[in-house]
Amino acid sequence: MPNTVRQWKLIARPKGLVAPTDLQLSESPLPALQNGQALARVKYLSIDPTMRVWMADIPQYMPPVALGEVMRSFGLAEILESRHPQFKKGDRVSGLTGLQDFVLIDAKDTRSFQKLPSIPFLSDTNFLGLLGINGLTAYFGLLEIGKPQSGETLVVSAAAGATGSIVGQIGKIHGCRVVGIAGSDDKCKWIKDDLGFDAAINYKHPDWKQQLAAATPNGIDIDFENVGGEIMQAVLDRMNLHGRVVLCGLISGYTREDPALASFGQVLMKRLRVEGFIILDYVSRFMEAGQQLGMWKMTGKLKDRQTIVKGLEMAPEAINMLFQGQNTGKLILEL
Amino acid sequence: MPNTVRQWKLIARPKGLVAPTDLQLSESPLPALQNGQALARVKYLSIDPTMRVWMADIPQYMPPVALGEVMRSFGLAEILESRHPQFKKGDRVSGLTGLQDFVLIDAKDTRSFQKLPSIPFLSDTNFLGLLGINGLTAYFGLLEIGKPQSGETLVVSAAAGATGSIVGQIGKIHGCRVVGIAGSDDKCKWIKDDLGFDAAINYKHPDWKQQLAAATPNGIDIDFENVGGEIMQAVLDRMNLHGRVVLCGLISGYTREDPALASFGQVLMKRLRVEGFIILDYVSRFMEAGQQLGMWKMTGKLKDRQTIVKGLEMAPEAINMLFQGQNTGKLILEL
Repeated sequence: MPNTVRQWKLIARPKGLVAPTDLQLSESPLPALQNGQALARVKYLSIDPTMRVWMADIPQYMPPVALGEVMRSFGLAEILESRHPQFKKGDRVSGLTGLQDFVLIDAKDTRSFQKLPSIPFLSDTNFLGLLGINGLTAYFGLLEIGKPQSGETLVVSAAAGATGSIVGQIGKIHGCRVVGIAGSDDKCKWIKDDLGFDAAINYKHPDWKQQLAAATPNGIDIDFENVGGEIMQAVLDRMNLHGRVVLCGLISGYTREDPALASFGQVLMKRLRVEGFIILDYVSRFMEAGQQLGMWKMTGKLKDRQTIVKGLEMAPEAINMLFQGQNTGKLILEL
Repeated sequence: MPNTVRQWKLIARPKGLVAPTDLQLSESPLPALQNGQALARVKYLSIDPTMRVWMADIPQYMPPVALGEVMRSFGLAEILESRHPQFKKGDRVSGLTGLQDFVLIDAKDTRSFQKLPSIPFLSDTNFLGLLGINGLTAYFGLLEIGKPQSGETLVVSAAAGATGSIVGQIGKIHGCRVVGIAGSDDKCKWIKDDLGFDAAINYKHPDWKQQLAAATPNGIDIDFENVGGEIMQAVLDRMNLHGRVVLCGLISGYTREDPALASFGQVLMKRLRVEGFIILDYVSRFMEAGQQLGMWKMTGKLKDRQTIVKGLEMAPEAINMLFQGQNTGKLILEL
């Protein structure tokens, strides 16, 4: 049995990429196994963009990793010794092992360790990617939020990544035209030739936005967004009316401060639904609304105020009043 | 009968506020009335922030006003003379009159002119605001997209404006705690004392963000967003999980170029639905997804690739690889 564990601890919060002074590899003694515990050897660690988010002291969907703690990560491990009610020696488990070579699992553990089944055609590491966090993210994100319909155009950014590569394939299974955006010709070749994407665009080519336009002749119905920033903007520029954006990641912003991404960061972390709204979409129901509004007004439940400006010649000044906070309630030009 | 019409024509596209050189007031002869036409005297013009959008040559929900054309606006007019099948002399009509003092209405008109009813308690100008574009926007935007539930906290920006002031009152009717953000103490007093908002915050006070926090002790469930920029960011910072943002306007950006607003501009104009997504919300359905993903993998419908890095000591470099595009498919650290 091992008696020490090597652990990567977070000792400073990164600015930009992870610097050698941010994570420290240290060796500590392994305590003796208590009743209810199991000791497992970590075999594989899942390396995910969200780890960079966990390192930052910003509002997010889980508490950030505290300074001095073992860095959080998903991983696969094999039970070496067990006094744990659920696991026995030789079991393979997945869960939040952390960046360390041995992990002590407790019966009261909150790191959601699960025993892995043995399934033909599936390797253990598939439980980190395809059947792990990435496959699940692709499955629910695309199907529940993107709601793909056969014939629609789906664009995926970071398309050769662990999540994006699965998103695109599920899009194909559901009958979408699928266009991937990735950062090298090799990645583009893989997703197009091996994974069956309809088109793949290398955003490092100078004319990539024209390529995106050519690859999406009917516009874009669904954006499965993993990147943010300039890539997201180019996709939004080609979105069709009433399109859906599955805001799954903003990797372009994780290693830099970008005020343009701050708002979308909140939308992502808090799973907000932001919906653009133009009243023209409701023309057929104006009568219903007018009756209700009129009733509320007549019964005193709704009050209004008007700011009246007089004279057609005042029109330009009146328009500018709106942008300088000079009206209260409805601004009307009286002729 | 008048024989000339005074018209504001758009002759240049504004940068920032509308400049005297952007709109030109000119007088033109009124043509004789043709069969199927009516001539109406414009009595009131609705002055709306969206007019500034119509002046800009950017992608939007209607065609921008062309240079040389009469500037588009909603208005109320009274029929002076009619050879039109639907309108007779003395009728009051609303529609896209444009910024002019007389309007020629054609039977084939696409400016959606409607005859106004006479209703007790309602003034004609109510058909521009409360029962016009603003009331309808407030009604459908809040109820259909915001989906307010009793007891939820609703924040409205530009809360003393024509739309915001109605949004807040409908929020109260539906049992929400309603907090308005406006730009003067007078406006705040009006929405709080007269309209019944629970709290009103003047964003020109230096401590307004602290006031917003104090006024929303349970966070914010719905943001009815009319402003964008710093105000929207402060509201997003206090949103609760799974909150809804009705993106109705971005007035803070209409008179300046702001890349941080460009993305939200597309969301607004195209009525996109952007939804933040974190896989943890679907934990209870992981089994279902795992079975489907496994089946797709086993039947060859889903392929994957892994990038394997070896050695626990490589963890920091592996994390950085993600942000430098150095992995294809799932990035795994093998111990």
